Amino acid sequence: MCGIVGYVGKENAASILIEGLSKLEYRGYDSAGIAVLDNSRDKKEIEIIKAKGRLQALREMTDNGKAVKGYCGIGHTRWATHGEPSVINAHPHVSKDKKIAVVHNGIIENYKEIKEYLQKKGYEFVSQTDTEVIAHLLDYYYKGNCLEAITKVLGRVRGSYALGILFQENPGVMYAVRKDSPLIVGKSPQGNLIASDVPAILKYTKTVCYIDDREIAEIKADGIRFYDIDQEELQKEFKTVEWDAKAAEKEGFEHFMLKEIYEQPKAVADTISPRIKNGKIVIDELEMTDEDIKKVSRIQMVACGSAYHVCVCAKYVLEKLAKIPVDVDLASEFRYRNPLMAKDTLVIVVSQSGETADSLAALRESKKKGYKVLGIVNVVGSSIAREADSVFYTWAGPEISVATTKAYSTQLAAVYLIGLLFGKVRGTIKDKEYREYIHELGRLPEKIQKILDEKERIQWLANKYSHTKDVFFIGRGLDYAISLEGSLKLKEISYIHSEAYAAGELKHGTISLIEEGVLVVGAATQPDLFEKEVSNLVEVRSRGACVLGLTSYGNYSIEDIADFTVYVPKTQDVFTTSLAVVPLQLLAYYISVAKGLDVDKPRNLAKSVTVE
Amino acid sequence: MCGIVGYVGKENAASILIEGLSKLEYRGYDSAGIAVLDNSRDKKEIEIIKAKGRLQALREMTDNGKAVKGYCGIGHTRWATHGEPSVINAHPHVSKDKKIAVVHNGIIENYKEIKEYLQKKGYEFVSQTDTEVIAHLLDYYYKGNCLEAITKVLGRVRGSYALGILFQENPGVMYAVRKDSPLIVGKSPQGNLIASDVPAILKYTKTVCYIDDREIAEIKADGIRFYDIDQEELQKEFKTVEWDAKAAEKEGFEHFMLKEIYEQPKAVADTISPRIKNGKIVIDELEMTDEDIKKVSRIQMVACGSAYHVCVCAKYVLEKLAKIPVDVDLASEFRYRNPLMAKDTLVIVVSQSGETADSLAALRESKKKGYKVLGIVNVVGSSIAREADSVFYTWAGPEISVATTKAYSTQLAAVYLIGLLFGKVRGTIKDKEYREYIHELGRLPEKIQKILDEKERIQWLANKYSHTKDVFFIGRGLDYAISLEGSLKLKEISYIHSEAYAAGELKHGTISLIEEGVLVVGAATQPDLFEKEVSNLVEVRSRGACVLGLTSYGNYSIEDIADFTVYVPKTQDVFTTSLAVVPLQLLAYYISVAKGLDVDKPRNLAKSVTVE
Repeated sequence: MCGIVGYVGKENAASILIEGLSKLEYRGYDSAGIAVLDNSRDKKEIEIIKAKGRLQALREMTDNGKAVKGYCGIGHTRWATHGEPSVINAHPHVSKDKKIAVVHNGIIENYKEIKEYLQKKGYEFVSQTDTEVIAHLLDYYYKGNCLEAITKVLGRVRGSYALGILFQENPGVMYAVRKDSPLIVGKSPQGNLIASDVPAILKYTKTVCYIDDREIAEIKADGIRFYDIDQEELQKEFKTVEWDAKAAEKEGFEHFMLKEIYEQPKAVADTISPRIKNGKIVIDELEMTDEDIKKVSRIQMVACGSAYHVCVCAKYVLEKLAKIPVDVDLASEFRYRNPLMAKDTLVIVVSQSGETADSLAALRESKKKGYKVLGIVNVVGSSIAREADSVFYTWAGPEISVATTKAYSTQLAAVYLIGLLFGKVRGTIKDKEYREYIHELGRLPEKIQKILDEKERIQWLANKYSHTKDVFFIGRGLDYAISLEGSLKLKEISYIHSEAYAAGELKHGTISLIEEGVLVVGAATQPDLFEKEVSNLVEVRSRGACVLGLTSYGNYSIEDIADFTVYVPKTQDVFTTSLAVVPLQLLAYYISVAKGLDVDKPRNLAKSVTVE
Repeated sequence: MCGIVGYVGKENAASILIEGLSKLEYRGYDSAGIAVLDNSRDKKEIEIIKAKGRLQALREMTDNGKAVKGYCGIGHTRWATHGEPSVINAHPHVSKDKKIAVVHNGIIENYKEIKEYLQKKGYEFVSQTDTEVIAHLLDYYYKGNCLEAITKVLGRVRGSYALGILFQENPGVMYAVRKDSPLIVGKSPQGNLIASDVPAILKYTKTVCYIDDREIAEIKADGIRFYDIDQEELQKEFKTVEWDAKAAEKEGFEHFMLKEIYEQPKAVADTISPRIKNGKIVIDELEMTDEDIKKVSRIQMVACGSAYHVCVCAKYVLEKLAKIPVDVDLASEFRYRNPLMAKDTLVIVVSQSGETADSLAALRESKKKGYKVLGIVNVVGSSIAREADSVFYTWAGPEISVATTKAYSTQLAAVYLIGLLFGKVRGTIKDKEYREYIHELGRLPEKIQKILDEKERIQWLANKYSHTKDVFFIGRGLDYAISLEGSLKLKEISYIHSEAYAAGELKHGTISLIEEGVLVVGAATQPDLFEKEVSNLVEVRSRGACVLGLTSYGNYSIEDIADFTVYVPKTQDVFTTSLAVVPLQLLAYYISVAKGLDVDKPRNLAKSVTVE
């Protein structure tokens, strides 16, 4: 996830680009850059200015853009995916001799293959980004016709992308194209613009056009044309945006949390798809040979908060798929416990921010003792990413809401991929199962979307139960892991005292709290444990609790005892958490909204806990 | 723990014995028996009738005692300690030719040594009890003078005991003696009685005398004499009991729970002292050679409820003392998880009742897979005790209150003993430390007593906070384990929604629940983690929580941030749980009392969960 902006018109481009980027910083903030082509000068050269860190650095280098002359340019604020945050990896990226400049949001999945192809043709690469291949590939295909070069690139790359492109030989023109990543075109008397998101251009115009997948926009100061992939011109309509700038930053969603809940299908797809190649799971970044994987004797998982709940899931998933015993610890406990770890234990540290203080300390403690540490991290170049022996990046993009949703879902996806890879290498998964698992993995995003499409039922339920004082989430096995996360979500943003319990454990004390008015959310997605879980729900129902059942389509018998039931699509048992957690996120969200609370910034909490 | 009763007078002894035993059934109920000597008959023989199970069986066998003739007798209701519940092991026990009959409450610690001694002298033993040695030892020392035989036995045995004794050659006389186990004498015009507890005789008399340690009572129908160990006669005073029968069953305590909290010093001492011999820990019942202990690669602990919290402690204790990695699972999760266990894993199942369904299933699952299972169990002859490969019995005696207290404390003591034994054998504890640990172990009972002596402060606090809606117990390391148990205690009997959290984890979500009026109990007994814990308490205090600090004497700086502090005596870090849990038990108890709830039988709960 990154932010793109572009301008061509009568005013100083750089100033407008920087102003636009400042509205897109929520999409990434580890580096920023602009490319401007001054077509008023004799010697037409693309000028590139880039800076690491927040946009402020770029502002200072360019005197808020005023120091860079020119009427046509593109800009970018980055959320690192491929390659650490640095000036080299910052966008725009350029072809040799800086004749073509590109800004990119998204991931080019087959960039390695293209890179190798181009390297054989003599192209030299300076960055670690996937974007740089676009610049060189455009150069490779460019024979005087910009549009033709772009369509050829589109035929060659796989993945998701929104691109802004400048050609030195075609000054005063900016190209825009996208697939699966957002990009809009705006027009105004002072000039025309492109951007990842409406707020970046709202100051200049409310007249925008949404580019569709694989459509190309050719933008000049005095006109905009659209083409399809066959270079045939398209007629597209412009619309007037009614949003105010603030709403638009959340892309129409009332809160970042809901926006991020909705981004889960894409975030999960982005995390999974680059790791599946020709029907096989390939995770080069693990830097583990088959021998290394076979040698792992145990896995020690360490994390905090929701990432810890991912680890609780992982214990079930990895033990089932790869038959490796998994130990799970809270980072704040692990670091002071002086844990006894077996030889050849692989330590996996999970953290969205990569800066969680206790998790980082756990990583250092493990490395000091000589264990190999794998980080599952969302923020590229963060401390945990830098210090871990290897990093599995979750491509969730920046998460703004304090209560995590999409980062959690991508961490789960990471666990599935690692479990399947390890299981395949260690021979604990049969080929047929392996294919079925991978097939099902690919369908998770659409299944998550299906749950989101039915959100109104959960909203209705949330309104009904928003005044509940005590909530228990109970489940067995993986359903217990789901319950932990469902309970935490509700707690953090609704301030309702909720608690997760292994369903079988309830009767050893906590059941004494069950009375009229208590809400019990019973997760029962695991076929083997369904009946046991239902028995536990009968117990709490008979003591007066209101029961919300959460299960997969088909298990309709739960309606005999539940007051209300939410169904999720069927999937492989080990993957159910990814689906079942979504209604629980929505439940927490809508209860918080119904109570009129600050969903995105709950009291007392910070996004990433960089202190003990 | 067992119940004793005795009668000599004008009425039919057996009927009175059975009536008395019915009032003592709370002290044990796995078998019962009586011995009656009919001194009206020519052929004076002691008649013994015993039955397994509840007293009802004995009632039926004897037509409520009417079928057994005689005016002098002793009776017993058993709580199995040495030897499973059976007719053979039921009391009374007799010498050869049934010339001497004995009922016993308590444990003879050196019974094995005495048994071997007597076996060499030609004595044959029929039961597995420790009591039988008393009968044979009396026979061995008896040369015509009953009193002399008894004093010699007192000089020979170690441990705790209350004894009722009949000699065939001295009909119409009953002897009673005790040390560290209760025994009273009651007198009435219809006859004189002995009993473990007042209610057993309250129907016949309110005039009682409390026998002191190592005093001997010689009781006839028409008179009672007391002697010291040198056979010198003592003058003792009789008192009038004002209690009604119901109160006395709880020995003056308002509830069984408080009574059992108060029994902890003795229960812990009873559990520890038989396993320390000549300054060394000897646990024959483990049936593990040093080689077996050295071979253990991991320990898998499994339990439910409070026993699970013991396992959480055990992870810290055993890993520290014996350097064996410990995995801890809820039994209800373990049994369905298909756990991957390393070769030479020792499975330890902890259960008070020995009948907990999930724990029993976990045991069977482990045995089926070929693992050695050790049970830590309170009820002798229970299913887990029978099916485990070896059993460590906690000598807590019968626990009546649903909320466990003394069983939990004895389970902890068992963990310490096992940890020290394993550590010594595996060379992970130095000799000097070992001696210090053992010394400190022996002092735990008196330190627990010291906390009990200051209960009024906690009672005052409990009254103040009885209307609290939400309570959090937070701690790090072993203090987290204490917090789990403190929270569960409060929950079960006060119905307040309380929750335990690893202190460092609070800020990853749950801290959003902290506001004015929330009570946070901060356990900070571990020196290494004291400052970190205090920082966490500062965080919750600054958000409005009322903070109750729980720490060891000396850590007075906690008062800077706590609203109220409870101190426990200093001890070895690994043993602190045994002390710190006591104020938390009292807090839960007094809050429940202040709320007017049914402390001993909280709603929805059963004592031992024999269903899933």
